[in-house]
Amino acid sequence: MYRNFRMVSYVVFGRGCYNQTKDILGQQRDKEKSDMVYLVDDVFKGAEFGDSIPLQGDDMLIWVNVDDEPKTKLVDALVEQIKGAMDKNPAGIVGVGGGSAMDLSKAVSVMMTNEGSSAEYQGYDLPKNPSLYHAAIPTLSGTGAEVSRTCVLTGPEKKLGINSDYSVFDQIILDPELIRGAPDEQRFYTGMDCYIHCIESLEGTFLNEFSKSYGQKSLELCREVFLNKRTEESEDKLMMASYCGGMSIAYSQVGVCHALSYGLAYVLGTHHGIGNAIVFDYLDEFYPEGVKEFRIMLDKAGVELPRGLCANLTEEQFEKMINVSLAMELLWENALGKDWKKIMTREKAREMFERM
Amino acid sequence: MYRNFRMVSYVVFGRGCYNQTKDILGQQRDKEKSDMVYLVDDVFKGAEFGDSIPLQGDDMLIWVNVDDEPKTKLVDALVEQIKGAMDKNPAGIVGVGGGSAMDLSKAVSVMMTNEGSSAEYQGYDLPKNPSLYHAAIPTLSGTGAEVSRTCVLTGPEKKLGINSDYSVFDQIILDPELIRGAPDEQRFYTGMDCYIHCIESLEGTFLNEFSKSYGQKSLELCREVFLNKRTEESEDKLMMASYCGGMSIAYSQVGVCHALSYGLAYVLGTHHGIGNAIVFDYLDEFYPEGVKEFRIMLDKAGVELPRGLCANLTEEQFEKMINVSLAMELLWENALGKDWKKIMTREKAREMFERM
Repeated sequence: MYRNFRMVSYVVFGRGCYNQTKDILGQQRDKEKSDMVYLVDDVFKGAEFGDSIPLQGDDMLIWVNVDDEPKTKLVDALVEQIKGAMDKNPAGIVGVGGGSAMDLSKAVSVMMTNEGSSAEYQGYDLPKNPSLYHAAIPTLSGTGAEVSRTCVLTGPEKKLGINSDYSVFDQIILDPELIRGAPDEQRFYTGMDCYIHCIESLEGTFLNEFSKSYGQKSLELCREVFLNKRTEESEDKLMMASYCGGMSIAYSQVGVCHALSYGLAYVLGTHHGIGNAIVFDYLDEFYPEGVKEFRIMLDKAGVELPRGLCANLTEEQFEKMINVSLAMELLWENALGKDWKKIMTREKAREMFERM
Repeated sequence: MYRNFRMVSYVVFGRGCYNQTKDILGQQRDKEKSDMVYLVDDVFKGAEFGDSIPLQGDDMLIWVNVDDEPKTKLVDALVEQIKGAMDKNPAGIVGVGGGSAMDLSKAVSVMMTNEGSSAEYQGYDLPKNPSLYHAAIPTLSGTGAEVSRTCVLTGPEKKLGINSDYSVFDQIILDPELIRGAPDEQRFYTGMDCYIHCIESLEGTFLNEFSKSYGQKSLELCREVFLNKRTEESEDKLMMASYCGGMSIAYSQVGVCHALSYGLAYVLGTHHGIGNAIVFDYLDEFYPEGVKEFRIMLDKAGVELPRGLCANLTEEQFEKMINVSLAMELLWENALGKDWKKIMTREKAREMFERM
């Protein structure tokens, strides 16, 4: 059984295509549903870009803080806020920002039409009703969130996405000019999320030609961006690397790095991009070529990886970290094969975390 | 203004995924609309594959003959046939075959819900009503018809597609095993359609990173398929080459070869794939590297190109051929720039056709 992969319905790509936002969203407005809700990363509050959001009529703009990665509580609060402010459902939800802002807007669009708390939908194919129309305007590239069917959420019990065809965006507006202003470190870590993801999926055991084609193209673009001097074209390529990386996940899986990094994130709240970069630097034995190349990119970017994250962990924290990480069975199987438990024992995982 | 590109809603890719057809289409059936109409290339009539079409209940199977490329008359006749046989619209239209069968099913799905003759819709964004659900099961790869928004039709006045977001498939079922049995020559010509298309778009003046990424990947896959020995993976790669080639058309255009080949097709009925191959062999001055590589592929495939097609043309036929070809302004501009008319004069076009 192969996954029947839901693709984004509409994509517009090009420098300056952000200026088409008003027209594109306008086609979703009618008498019945006339207002949009923008969820915008609050780093743009008071900034020129934040002021440029093309609000019309009774559109709502909600600044979202993603210093912490999205929580189910935040999703529920946003849904309540929107429902409280509007007498009827809006025409759509528009996420503006990086992976977290995009994931939030996916989750909110699903929860606007499905009852209960978003925590009840962390899992696979749980939402029953189609989501509201939702669009993404990425201002950071690398996560692939613009094309993926998940929206990663930290809930009371687990960190797990709402994985649903209803999460997939109806529209993505890919304007490379919008990612030009990202801070260098953040650009690097988010780009490395893409790079690492490609290494893991291409070296994994779950793969077919669809995912391989996308993964190879994404990897090639990452190399052009992070091994060469930054040029006019770099942001175009980075944006396409992220898109291709996201598409490649259709028939592939990530591996060792993502599994361990989930552990870090759960216990320490380490963000996805930086967490992956920290972990990857210790994975020579699993991805020797990839790690070597990663270090060249790291060096070129002039980024210093944080160290000693696990220096003061309690026994309980270590246990939790190992539990969360080893629970990612598909990732381990993809990376190490069916007998992965013989390779990645609790002791081995502990020893690896201790070095980080 | 960048095109807001409509993507196929669902794609399933994988060897043997054809076996999921029944389940996938089953999700589109309900009490209201329960029957599917399959339009199947009649080369499969009486063949094992033809017998394997998973008909259910009152599903219709219509064998379509595509010895000639699709005509608006055929589309209109099919719509009449289906409407005559069913009291209400079916749940969907499923095209099974190569580019022609897929194009026919796109056109029929549009015309089931739009009044009049399909000839009235040859152009851009003319259909007013959404089409019926429609799916494609390609048995030949290279045209990119599985992901494109056009369905090329020969009408009483012109050869031009119904270019509409409503033409885009709701579902494509990409099973590399289905293209394994294609006759060698047809496989080659259809593959060369993809190869030539990539050369033309990558060397054209209309291009952005979205189309470039897809075009480069498609070209790379074509090279792997046609410059190397045929292996187990060849059909997987060819299928992805076609998909990527089709996607690359979002922000690119074809060029000299397609423009001239349209002229051949209109006057002589030369099929798209073979017509492109014939023309491309005379385009050293426009695509020197591409033509060189094409000849290596031709040689490896052991295919003999037809010659002397225009040997006995009347003056009137030459004039028509030149008119049709030079009317493809966008293609010429993409290939030769804004001043293309100074390069591709009527005399030059005539001289080129005379050699073919």
